[in-house]
Amino acid sequence: MVFSALNELGDSIIAWADPDSAFGGYTKGWPLTDFASAISIAIAYFLFVVIGSRVMEKRDPIDPYPIKFLYNVSQIMLCAYMTIEAILLAYRSGYSVIPCNPYSQENPPLARLLWLFYVSKVWDFWDTIFIVLGKKWRQLSFLHVYHHLTIFMFYWLNANVLYDSDIFLTIALNGFIHTVMYTYYFICMHTKDTKTGKSLPIWWKSYLTLLQLIQFVTMMSQGTYLFTSGCDQLSVPIAKVYVGYIFSLFLLFLQFYIQSYMKPKKKKVT
Amino acid sequence: MVFSALNELGDSIIAWADPDSAFGGYTKGWPLTDFASAISIAIAYFLFVVIGSRVMEKRDPIDPYPIKFLYNVSQIMLCAYMTIEAILLAYRSGYSVIPCNPYSQENPPLARLLWLFYVSKVWDFWDTIFIVLGKKWRQLSFLHVYHHLTIFMFYWLNANVLYDSDIFLTIALNGFIHTVMYTYYFICMHTKDTKTGKSLPIWWKSYLTLLQLIQFVTMMSQGTYLFTSGCDQLSVPIAKVYVGYIFSLFLLFLQFYIQSYMKPKKKKVT
Repeated sequence: MVFSALNELGDSIIAWADPDSAFGGYTKGWPLTDFASAISIAIAYFLFVVIGSRVMEKRDPIDPYPIKFLYNVSQIMLCAYMTIEAILLAYRSGYSVIPCNPYSQENPPLARLLWLFYVSKVWDFWDTIFIVLGKKWRQLSFLHVYHHLTIFMFYWLNANVLYDSDIFLTIALNGFIHTVMYTYYFICMHTKDTKTGKSLPIWWKSYLTLLQLIQFVTMMSQGTYLFTSGCDQLSVPIAKVYVGYIFSLFLLFLQFYIQSYMKPKKKKVT
Repeated sequence: MVFSALNELGDSIIAWADPDSAFGGYTKGWPLTDFASAISIAIAYFLFVVIGSRVMEKRDPIDPYPIKFLYNVSQIMLCAYMTIEAILLAYRSGYSVIPCNPYSQENPPLARLLWLFYVSKVWDFWDTIFIVLGKKWRQLSFLHVYHHLTIFMFYWLNANVLYDSDIFLTIALNGFIHTVMYTYYFICMHTKDTKTGKSLPIWWKSYLTLLQLIQFVTMMSQGTYLFTSGCDQLSVPIAKVYVGYIFSLFLLFLQFYIQSYMKPKKKKVT
């Protein structure tokens, strides 16, 4: 009952993005592509953040080291796979970096990978679980929760409506950044001196955020070019929302970059 | 002239491995699949080791940090890609871990990936270049050179004759171990304390060699099962040589494992 009402809502979102049903259908029935599943996961995630932090407030922090360890390895491998596969699929399909590559509704070479990319955004939720369990409240920022939640919902839409063509660039760029990011996290698990308890600095930490900013600019350029060049091979409403949405992420990450790396650091009073 | 003579030699190796021409042909003409190219690369590699170490003996060690840095990232990504792609291709082709999966000579789902795996063995040669430039003679062992050289030549044969079916397991296993190995190398680039100059220990270092040993045992079991179970879908001569060859690697790695982790360490005289 509730599920079918939710799926109706999902159908109207899809109809808005793709009024002529020109860009969807192929992935119908694939796991987690229905709106009811997606929004349930999103709500469960949000409730976990709210309730989980309440519960943890009164408890000792938990550090599930073995799970974190394997999780980082799994993410490094998965993200590296998606990056290279996106590039190879684009190459084999004769795509260029310039937008308006041919879109295939019925036989989309990218659909399977895009679906995996979408589902990998659920796997990313472990980041938040570790933060809440470890009581690292400083990391549980608006940026963090907003980013995880909205990326997931945005790719629910993509998995339903725009599962081919230019979207390969997003997977390649984002997959690459995530590979580097999880490699960074994994390295951090090895740089703590057991005697002094101090972590060694990693010189390229700030470059990671910089890479993310460059990624967003590239994505926005691609999206803007798409709907200004008169390309009608792809869903224009989605391209527009995509650019606006990526811009919101760009601003939040820029704010983070400035706060973390450009403001003079307060010296500790000794 | 020399090249065609070499290629004739290559053809007779292929004819030995596949007398009925039942397992080859699809990859003919692909880059580096001819014997002349492969053996030239192998000889160049060997000459580099011999001449390179002579040249470096009288010079200061060189540490090409930026190249090493990017190289490790490239290997982590490439190996992770090959691992996951091998598993996905096997899954989509309906393969099982038990040997004697159907072999396709004309339309082999695995051929392209196997070719990439073969070529990636050239990319592995950078390991040796870094060792010679850095004058880390202790690492320039017989095991190291033998391993790099023979693996490359063995997969030249596979790229020509046995490019489908059960070989997926080798790519998945070896790709995974190499992902972990290059991640280990990359982590090591971040664990040196700039003040004390000491590297932090990585607790799972010895497990890496153990993983490699388990990998070899799995490979030998698969190969042995193949030619004892009466499977005629695959080249039996190659399977036999494969098991013998992997056994030689197993012994060398076992020796390394015992020497490195099981012998009592000599205490430094203080």
